[in-house]
Amino acid sequence: MKYGYFDDENKEYVITRPDTPLPWINYLGCESYFGIISNTAGGYSFYKDARLRRLTRYRYNNVPTDFGGRYLYIRENKKKEFWSPTWQPTRSKLEQYKCRHGLGYTIISSFYKKIEAKIRYIVPLGDNLEIWQLSIKNHRKNPVDLSIFSCIEFCLWNAIDDSTNFQRNFNTGEIEIEDGVIYHKTEYRERRNHFAFFACSDSLEGFDTQRENFLGSYRGWENPIVVESGQSSNSYAFGWSPIGSHHINLILNPNESKQIIFILGYHENNIDNRFDPIGTQKINKKTVKEVISKYLNPINVEKAFASLNNYWNNLLNIFHVNTPDIHTNRMVNIWNPYQNMITFKLSRSASFFESGISRGIGFRDSNQDMLGFMHLVPIEAKKRILDLAATQLITGGAYHQYQPLTKKGNHDIGSEFNDDPLWLVLSVSAYLKETGDLNILDELVQFNNEPGTEQPLFNHLQCSLQYIHDRLGPHDLPLIGRADWNDCLNLNCFSDNPDQSFQTTKNKEGKVAESVFIAGLFIAALKEFIKILKQKNSLDETKLYLEWAENMNSAILKYGWDGEWFVRAYDNFGNKIGSHECEEGQIFIEPQGYCIMAGVGIEEGFAEKALNSVKSKLATPHGIMLCQPPYSQYYIHLGEISSYPPGYKENGSIFCHSNPWIMIAEAMVGHGDQAHDYYTRINPSARETISEVHRCEPYIYAQMIAGKDASTFGEAKNSWLTGTATWNFIAITNWILGIRPTYKGLYISPIIPKSWSGFQATRIFRGVKYSISVERVGKGNNSIVYVNNKQIDGNFIPPPPPKIKEIFISVKIN
Amino acid sequence: MKYGYFDDENKEYVITRPDTPLPWINYLGCESYFGIISNTAGGYSFYKDARLRRLTRYRYNNVPTDFGGRYLYIRENKKKEFWSPTWQPTRSKLEQYKCRHGLGYTIISSFYKKIEAKIRYIVPLGDNLEIWQLSIKNHRKNPVDLSIFSCIEFCLWNAIDDSTNFQRNFNTGEIEIEDGVIYHKTEYRERRNHFAFFACSDSLEGFDTQRENFLGSYRGWENPIVVESGQSSNSYAFGWSPIGSHHINLILNPNESKQIIFILGYHENNIDNRFDPIGTQKINKKTVKEVISKYLNPINVEKAFASLNNYWNNLLNIFHVNTPDIHTNRMVNIWNPYQNMITFKLSRSASFFESGISRGIGFRDSNQDMLGFMHLVPIEAKKRILDLAATQLITGGAYHQYQPLTKKGNHDIGSEFNDDPLWLVLSVSAYLKETGDLNILDELVQFNNEPGTEQPLFNHLQCSLQYIHDRLGPHDLPLIGRADWNDCLNLNCFSDNPDQSFQTTKNKEGKVAESVFIAGLFIAALKEFIKILKQKNSLDETKLYLEWAENMNSAILKYGWDGEWFVRAYDNFGNKIGSHECEEGQIFIEPQGYCIMAGVGIEEGFAEKALNSVKSKLATPHGIMLCQPPYSQYYIHLGEISSYPPGYKENGSIFCHSNPWIMIAEAMVGHGDQAHDYYTRINPSARETISEVHRCEPYIYAQMIAGKDASTFGEAKNSWLTGTATWNFIAITNWILGIRPTYKGLYISPIIPKSWSGFQATRIFRGVKYSISVERVGKGNNSIVYVNNKQIDGNFIPPPPPKIKEIFISVKIN
Repeated sequence: MKYGYFDDENKEYVITRPDTPLPWINYLGCESYFGIISNTAGGYSFYKDARLRRLTRYRYNNVPTDFGGRYLYIRENKKKEFWSPTWQPTRSKLEQYKCRHGLGYTIISSFYKKIEAKIRYIVPLGDNLEIWQLSIKNHRKNPVDLSIFSCIEFCLWNAIDDSTNFQRNFNTGEIEIEDGVIYHKTEYRERRNHFAFFACSDSLEGFDTQRENFLGSYRGWENPIVVESGQSSNSYAFGWSPIGSHHINLILNPNESKQIIFILGYHENNIDNRFDPIGTQKINKKTVKEVISKYLNPINVEKAFASLNNYWNNLLNIFHVNTPDIHTNRMVNIWNPYQNMITFKLSRSASFFESGISRGIGFRDSNQDMLGFMHLVPIEAKKRILDLAATQLITGGAYHQYQPLTKKGNHDIGSEFNDDPLWLVLSVSAYLKETGDLNILDELVQFNNEPGTEQPLFNHLQCSLQYIHDRLGPHDLPLIGRADWNDCLNLNCFSDNPDQSFQTTKNKEGKVAESVFIAGLFIAALKEFIKILKQKNSLDETKLYLEWAENMNSAILKYGWDGEWFVRAYDNFGNKIGSHECEEGQIFIEPQGYCIMAGVGIEEGFAEKALNSVKSKLATPHGIMLCQPPYSQYYIHLGEISSYPPGYKENGSIFCHSNPWIMIAEAMVGHGDQAHDYYTRINPSARETISEVHRCEPYIYAQMIAGKDASTFGEAKNSWLTGTATWNFIAITNWILGIRPTYKGLYISPIIPKSWSGFQATRIFRGVKYSISVERVGKGNNSIVYVNNKQIDGNFIPPPPPKIKEIFISVKIN
Repeated sequence: MKYGYFDDENKEYVITRPDTPLPWINYLGCESYFGIISNTAGGYSFYKDARLRRLTRYRYNNVPTDFGGRYLYIRENKKKEFWSPTWQPTRSKLEQYKCRHGLGYTIISSFYKKIEAKIRYIVPLGDNLEIWQLSIKNHRKNPVDLSIFSCIEFCLWNAIDDSTNFQRNFNTGEIEIEDGVIYHKTEYRERRNHFAFFACSDSLEGFDTQRENFLGSYRGWENPIVVESGQSSNSYAFGWSPIGSHHINLILNPNESKQIIFILGYHENNIDNRFDPIGTQKINKKTVKEVISKYLNPINVEKAFASLNNYWNNLLNIFHVNTPDIHTNRMVNIWNPYQNMITFKLSRSASFFESGISRGIGFRDSNQDMLGFMHLVPIEAKKRILDLAATQLITGGAYHQYQPLTKKGNHDIGSEFNDDPLWLVLSVSAYLKETGDLNILDELVQFNNEPGTEQPLFNHLQCSLQYIHDRLGPHDLPLIGRADWNDCLNLNCFSDNPDQSFQTTKNKEGKVAESVFIAGLFIAALKEFIKILKQKNSLDETKLYLEWAENMNSAILKYGWDGEWFVRAYDNFGNKIGSHECEEGQIFIEPQGYCIMAGVGIEEGFAEKALNSVKSKLATPHGIMLCQPPYSQYYIHLGEISSYPPGYKENGSIFCHSNPWIMIAEAMVGHGDQAHDYYTRINPSARETISEVHRCEPYIYAQMIAGKDASTFGEAKNSWLTGTATWNFIAITNWILGIRPTYKGLYISPIIPKSWSGFQATRIFRGVKYSISVERVGKGNNSIVYVNNKQIDGNFIPPPPPKIKEIFISVKIN
């Protein structure tokens, strides 16, 4: 069952009924001002930090679902009847409803009794505000007398405090109104130099800023007394709950239409020049008036919209494909890079599942995320790499998270997630391959953000590897620490207190529990590092790291191979996890993926065996499960993984993030059909037709899909902010389509399904546009590459001479 | 305007319309299981700790107001019409509505189309559960076919995590159903040994445990699809949002009535015996069945209700008065001690204004609170005293808060609120006077909860005083530290960052800023300590402390007197705060109250002057403001006080907590009329007729009433959990009615209004019932006391011989 359709031409998903299984959201904003917006205009906005600078209130997990947002009410004054053109909050029976989620904007349109309304929500580039562009048209034969009421509820900036500290914050709310603009200035009188503004292009019939006045006593957003009566109360908020509501009257003749613009924005003043007149508590508005009047002009709004489209089109043009599979095309060309960029901007902070109050940027998360957007914004990726590296500790370990506002490591969560430092090697190597900019290795970067500790980034990478090498367990495999990539495998925790965090509680010394996953990742990182050394012409140094890689390879083959698949880990007692010896959790996906990706066991035939085991034991029609059988009970020596009911989250769900590792491994061993099949199973577009099962957005990857042991098998959760986006992009583009950046140039070696006749792609790489045409001429995986019609030796396309900006590649697969 | 009336006979406040200005709440539970319940059945329940063991969800500051609670729906099946007998959540137009908030119980009753429904909510003594006792009666002439649906929404235990960590907790929800009982067992599989149960005395037509199934897509509590359709879906919650809903069908003949009992409870199993059968994940229910079946029997419910009434009546009988003023009577006899007990149990954790997630018990708060319930539960007070003292630091300072579950000091908030340790002296002295139990002074108590640091409680008191004595500033007045009683006077903070806490950020060394309030409090505490020394016959030791008191007295007279009133403090630059020299904040209430209470300046006539200044500069018809003029802007050297808009909170509101200090001071200088006038101005019962202005409950004190500079002058906020309760009780009983415990026995010296002809009181003191009759025979304040009709010398009533359990006192005032 579908709730809408893809409009690939316009790069939009069009939702055609408002009652989607869950709110299907989109993001507004690409720079500093962000918002999440659902298909019925629910959601909230913030400036940079969803916890500390939240502009509007949103009640998570509320009843009714997704109640509260960017609302307009239309009232037909004669009939005293009103409705919301976005369905919520009145949930009136609209005659037509469409929500178009586009790249950085959302358009919701509807008909109600022949009144057409369309609202386009955008955040323009370069300014810290959002625009609601309302077009309203009378399709009746008679004139109609309408009132429009806007309404947003202000958050008192700090989202946690706002929702908990009522004995203070019921007293602090303050508002100013000037020239029809509502200014929210709570705490501006004290330590804040920022305020919010809510403006309207039309002259006002009235306004409200105190929630209770607008809603009336014990009323909800669905029937505010002010809208019901058609009369604003012109209220000023003193404490309690400040809102912003404009009231506009208009008469529309038959076929007449009108546009009204609303602007909600954030503005900072110079701290010493906050007030005007000086000595009063009134906001100095001189600095904000220009931006308000700019966007109340429809011409500028159209310009802003064009710029925004241009921004996204330029990004998406960097990599574009045309394959026989429409789901591949629309994910690779539109939605997957879009999600990658959102993940870059927001990390794990704000979505329908992330409440915006966790402020950390994950060390592992962000280094991984970068792989998926490195080709889009390498300069921004470089900054992020340097920020992350500066939170590395002198031990080589890393803070698991850092705070985006201060860029300092988060002490509460701390360090000792032992895979963390390796991901820095992978992100730097991805940056180097994409850009060729070796200078980054010489950038001086602090440790633990301490001045005086600066060392070249290159040394940070050495420290990362040394950290793992120094921490090997009884089987010469890496110690797991608090957890590896699987945050819920807490082998040193032994927590029996529900008021503890699994990750930060540590009762055991951790000198025994080892991770085969980290072992694979270590080899992969060593191989990348050795390539970096070669780029630096430091060939002598490679010897040591080659030796480390060989030793680790031996350790995996000796202690990490279970006969049919790779072992997952050794626990605190030295017992295997993810082995046929276990009763539950016999096989895990992670080491099968990453060991093969690291090249371990390919020669020995272990890779094929492991992948067969994945197929027979973990794969389902909805994707590949993380482990099987799931843990039926809590095991204190395993930690959080066994705290979940079977089939959910790390305990045997289809944890989508790790599925692409198997796709890559399948591609590496030449199984194009299998790789693409796995790709399709969790491709949200391919799952669109089972939206009533999948439930999350069909245009965006979710972190997990409930596994076969769950009662809701196939149900997705935690869409948007997940490493799933990056890894699926890497799997399909770099490995299945086989187009990947290398030090030597772009490399092409597709491992595609046998049924495909070929595909076309364009890739902009180091300033050159590669127009690629792939044709399958046989059933194998052997690619012969032609550059400008001349066959080359191998699959590395040498960079063209400096002035050449476009080259044509054709590939024959036989 | 009133929204109800006092039923003094039944010790109830009866609310007669559901749309009170704010939700008017009550508390269920006196021991370990607690709930807050509004007049329309909103609220939530928890076991011991409102943050970590929350049973049901509540959305604070929600829209509509107070949406979510302990709900029943009644559906007339023939007409397919349904309503809530508690008004919320359907808000149907009830023909009659009454909510009776009693002591530890609430009864909500209503009529809708001649169907009468009454629900009594109680938490029985001795068990961890709440009972909803529904009586339903058909007043029609025809039989009626009804369905009853219950509904509560479970919280996943940790209230913070529950409202923020959705990527985990949308996966963890688990339920069992057995014999019609709904068991909520989220995380029981892992580290929890507790679960919730929701049972019903009737056989079920159906049930629901998944919120979405019950409500339907995008619906609210006001129109669940299950209730609308009359058909439960028998859903099991797997993740998402577990609820409990029973469905009962019944046919009522004309005049027939029926009772249905619902029980919501908390139960802990032995951790090793949690599952039954062993090896499964099923709850061992053997241990809980008895308590469920006990309370599904109406006879036991009636017994429980009788016990509860008995419990409260016994407490309230300890002190009972009959004065010419009804507001005095009902507050002293019923509501004020009730509020004192709630404040004892809940500290500042859970109310309509306290979101239940701050877990600390305040050192100052609790020591102060104790003054108001010392006569009610001295044994429990003793335990609290010893808990508090054990969080004192070896320096004499104290953690500002401690965690009720661990009883350890809260490191996040820390110490250095420099008045804190003095309140321990006052609470111990109150305990000694009430009980005569000097042994408490010899109790060995740790410092900072560290084993091996035990010292007698007496030494803790010495440390407290020494701490102040060792921390004097340039004017020989006590240094203020982070703040004194006025948590918002942060003279060493200098915070310019809105993401900091005013209290825990400290940029200045704090060697200059001094508090005249602490100076007064220090003298008061020294005087109490000297009395303790005398009780211990340690007369030699008194000299030192007398000297300290005299020195401090001199310092106040020299540097703390401003000419017409007492100075409030000296800031970090050595400038005065609360002086005629200041432009704003010229006069503060606190030092006027506490200096006079400590006896400072009475001889010199300063007390009279200061009280005149209070009257002319701070008093309003709604009570006495904290300071005047309020600060018009933020002053970085003053801190949080100046962060509030003028007239709110510490910045010039009527901060009710400090008003009784002025009442006491007025009584001490003999102004009975003025004292009782001030008492009446903030007496909630006396303010009942202006409920539309006051807005908070008319039976309970609020922390603050907006001051004259506020836009909402007279509006109360933060009712229930405030030191206001204790201090008003002390002011009226100990000082205006003048009946107070002393070492020598009960002391009687009323300072009552001239218009009063007298009053009667009974006071149980050290096991003896004092029946007191006071008669005014003249216009003065001179009390002549008769014991069993014989005049005694002075006002101390000597304890009667051991076997005498009741004595009769009469007092003539002339």
